[in-house]
Order: sequence, then C-alpha cells, then structure tokens
Amino acid sequence: MRLACVQFAPTFADLDANTDRIVADIERIDADVIVFPELATSGYFHIGPHEVARIAEPLDGPHISRIVSAAESASKVVVCGFAEVHQGTFFNSSVIAGKGLAQPQVYRKTHLFYKETLGFAPGDTGFFVIHLEHLDCHLGMMICYDWRFPESARTLALKGADVVVCPSNLITHIWRMAMPVRALENKVYLAVANRTGAEHNNNEDVSFNGQSAIYSFNGSVLADAPEHGDAVIITEILPHETRIKSFNSINDIIKDRREERYW
Amino acid sequence: MRLACVQFAPTFADLDANTDRIVADIERIDADVIVFPELATSGYFHIGPHEVARIAEPLDGPHISRIVSAAESASKVVVCGFAEVHQGTFFNSSVIAGKGLAQPQVYRKTHLFYKETLGFAPGDTGFFVIHLEHLDCHLGMMICYDWRFPESARTLALKGADVVVCPSNLITHIWRMAMPVRALENKVYLAVANRTGAEHNNNEDVSFNGQSAIYSFNGSVLADAPEHGDAVIITEILPHETRIKSFNSINDIIKDRREERYW
Repeated sequence: MRLACVQFAPTFADLDANTDRIVADIERIDADVIVFPELATSGYFHIGPHEVARIAEPLDGPHISRIVSAAESASKVVVCGFAEVHQGTFFNSSVIAGKGLAQPQVYRKTHLFYKETLGFAPGDTGFFVIHLEHLDCHLGMMICYDWRFPESARTLALKGADVVVCPSNLITHIWRMAMPVRALENKVYLAVANRTGAEHNNNEDVSFNGQSAIYSFNGSVLADAPEHGDAVIITEILPHETRIKSFNSINDIIKDRREERYW
Repeated sequence: MRLACVQFAPTFADLDANTDRIVADIERIDADVIVFPELATSGYFHIGPHEVARIAEPLDGPHISRIVSAAESASKVVVCGFAEVHQGTFFNSSVIAGKGLAQPQVYRKTHLFYKETLGFAPGDTGFFVIHLEHLDCHLGMMICYDWRFPESARTLALKGADVVVCPSNLITHIWRMAMPVRALENKVYLAVANRTGAEHNNNEDVSFNGQSAIYSFNGSVLADAPEHGDAVIITEILPHETRIKSFNSINDIIKDRREERYW
C-alpha cells in the first residue's frame, strides 16, 4: 500500500483556504492513505474556548464534509487533524475517512499539549484501530504530543495496529529520537505528518519543525521531509509484515509482556 | 554522584576468576555506584536447569558474599548480575549492595530472553526502587531484554527512580536506538553495563556487543565504551535533576499520563 504524509503550513484560521489545499492534495497525491497534520484545517495556536469556538466544527461540518467527500471520490483513505465540536465540547481531533470506511471515524487527542488545555477537552475516544480491508491494513491514530507517552503507540499495537499515523504540530526536536523507537518497540510502521511555519498569539510565538517522516517497523526512515517548506513524502509499505512479533523461536515482543509487573 | 559501568568478558563458568576480577574492580574504580554486566560472575550461555544449577548460588552464596563484602568495605554501591538459586528456583538476577543498604537486595529479571527461559524462571520481584540516601539517589534496576518493553523503565520511573541501571549481555544492536529513549521518555539517567566477547554452547554461538553507555535524562550520551574490549566508563550525575517532570507551565510527562486509556 502507498502511504503518504503531507507537510505544509496551514493558514491561521482560514478554514476555506486550508480545506481547498487539502482537497487538492487528496485529488493529486497518488497514495492509498494520505495523512495531513494536526489541526490542518485551522492552524494551531487558537487559545481558549472563544478562539477555538471560531474554528471548531462537528464531524459533519462543512470543511470536514468536503474532505470526506474528496477522499471518497478519490477512493483514498484520508487522515486529517481538525478542531472538533461535539455536543458543546471541543476536541483536538483527527478524522479518518474515505475508501473502505462506511462512515468517517474520529480520534480525539488523548494527551493535550500546553495551551491546548485551555480550549480543548482531553480526548474521550481512547486509542482504536481501523481495519482497512482493501489494503489489508490495521491503522491506528495518535496526535502529536501523544508520542511522548510510550503507552499511546503501545496501546495501538496491542489493539492490532500495523500502522500508526500521527498528525502533528511538533515544536521541539526530541521527537526525532523517540518516534523511530515507537515503531521499533511495537514493530509497527509509523507515519508523522508534521506542519511547518510559525504562529503568534497572545505575545507568544510557536514555530513548527517539519521533518515529516515515515518509519519502518525496525525504526529505519523510509521517507522524510526537510525542516522547512511544503513536502509530500510517499512510500510503499507492507502492513502484514508487522504481524509476526516473534524474532526467534522463543521470544515475542508482545506475548513476552508481563502486564502484572507494570506500574 | 559518580556512576560507573564496567564492561568485560566474563570467563565462562569460572565464578572464582570472575569474582576476583569484579572485587578488584570494586576496590580500584573511583565511583559511588559501580554497575557490572548481567550474569557477570558466571558468563551467559548456560542452557537449561542442569547447566544453570552448576553456576547458581543464593544471595548469601560464596561469590556474591565476596562482592557484597567488597562493596561494603569500599563504601561503594555495587550492582552485579548473577545466576541466583532461591528456594530451588533459578533466577537471572542482579544484586545491589554496599554503602547505604542495610542488606543486599535482589532484582530478578522480568523478561527472559531466548534460552534463558530453559534454565531460569521469570523474575518474581517486579521492578522496585532503592533509596540511596547518602547519594540523594533513587535507583532502579532492569536487566538486558527488559529494555525491549517500555513498561520496564516506565514502571521504575513511576516508582520514583532517578537512575535506571541495566546490567546486560546484549547481542543485537537495536538497543542502541531505544536505550536513550528510555531515558528521555522517563526523564531518568540510564546506565547500561554490557559485556563483550562470545560464547558457544550446544552448536550455537552468541556474541555480545559492548558499547556500554550512560545516558543523561535527555537521552544524550554522557559516556560510552567501544564495541570490543574491556572498559570502565564513569560520569558525574545529579539524580535530583530528574525529578521535575514538567517542562512548561502546564505539561508534566508523568502527570499527563492517562492510564485509563492504556491497553
């Protein structure tokens, strides 16, 4: 299957322009699964409920509906971060939609970073895995700061993920050390779609460091993007190759876990 | 505090010679905590209960007693891997003894690797942390293949470890990618004392890849050893600097965990 990550700098609060761009990418990029950054429709640094309210929409809202329709029309699977409002609560969410999905599904970011906590509620979906039958692929989502907790990717692996995708707005560099290990320690593919650019709000600057990457299940880099500028990275992966978690006649990195000894 | 790892190739099944060497190292190395490899008194590749029985001893057995005495006499803390027999059961264990410990404590390896499973029982101690008051240090042990499970170091960090020590007989190279991330993801120091050399048993060869290393809590290498040959690495560390797990005014890598969402 062909897996792609799109790296770009969303225009702050311009949902129409960002959606135009995302839809055009969905149409033009030759891949089975296309991953966009966190909060790709809105930009990142919306602080507090009043600002988040201006950019949030439900899963069937106008911009996400356009993205879902584009994915379905193109017969592709799309993962895209957006600001969601659900029953009056705001979430930093990621939609997965398109080919093979009867309806769009949403993952709500479990671990909130910094001032996200002022506008968004902690995710209530937990980590889950989608079976994409036409791709023989079990796909799980996490978002950005979820990487900091080995429990996130681990939970997805325990639920059967072959591929973990991670829409991101990463601002530090330390994730570059850890992300390949999330792949290695779980024997899963891992795709990080990170944004670029900078934003300013309430006397504070945040800048995002690109370097979107797709890691193989041994932690090696299959494709990566530069720190600055738009990029699309695409690689061919074989999801079923992640499923045998044994590496000799005795050991298996999942079955060898001794959960009663943890925490 | 001064933390040291000793890298060497134990002589297979020669407990006297290995203990001589370990005791001499304890006396000569200028450090507060000295970490030796896994199964340092016996060598590694003893297959099955009959072979393990020949090298195993209780925590108060003759060789471990010499090591404990040397640690106490030198007013140092020593961590050393050995084959333990306890109430008729064999464990791949690590003793910690010396200054500040009323009596030696033992950690029994939680995750057994390959043919260790034929001779040893899975550890029954779980992961625990020792408070070394004179060093203002909370120290936890894991052994070799325990690294493969992020839950090991995580459990130690959740129990308050500032420093994780990891006596090892590592035979692959992938741990070099993951060990610094174990330090980073938990904000703990991590010391890997690995052995070198090769062993042969039952038509099978194993060779060990040295590269003992001490990582800071940001994942950077503070000291490391070459792949081949004996080495002692020593570095000064500040255990209390690991304890503030927050990194901005809102986030904390331990408090931000959402355990109800894991597994």
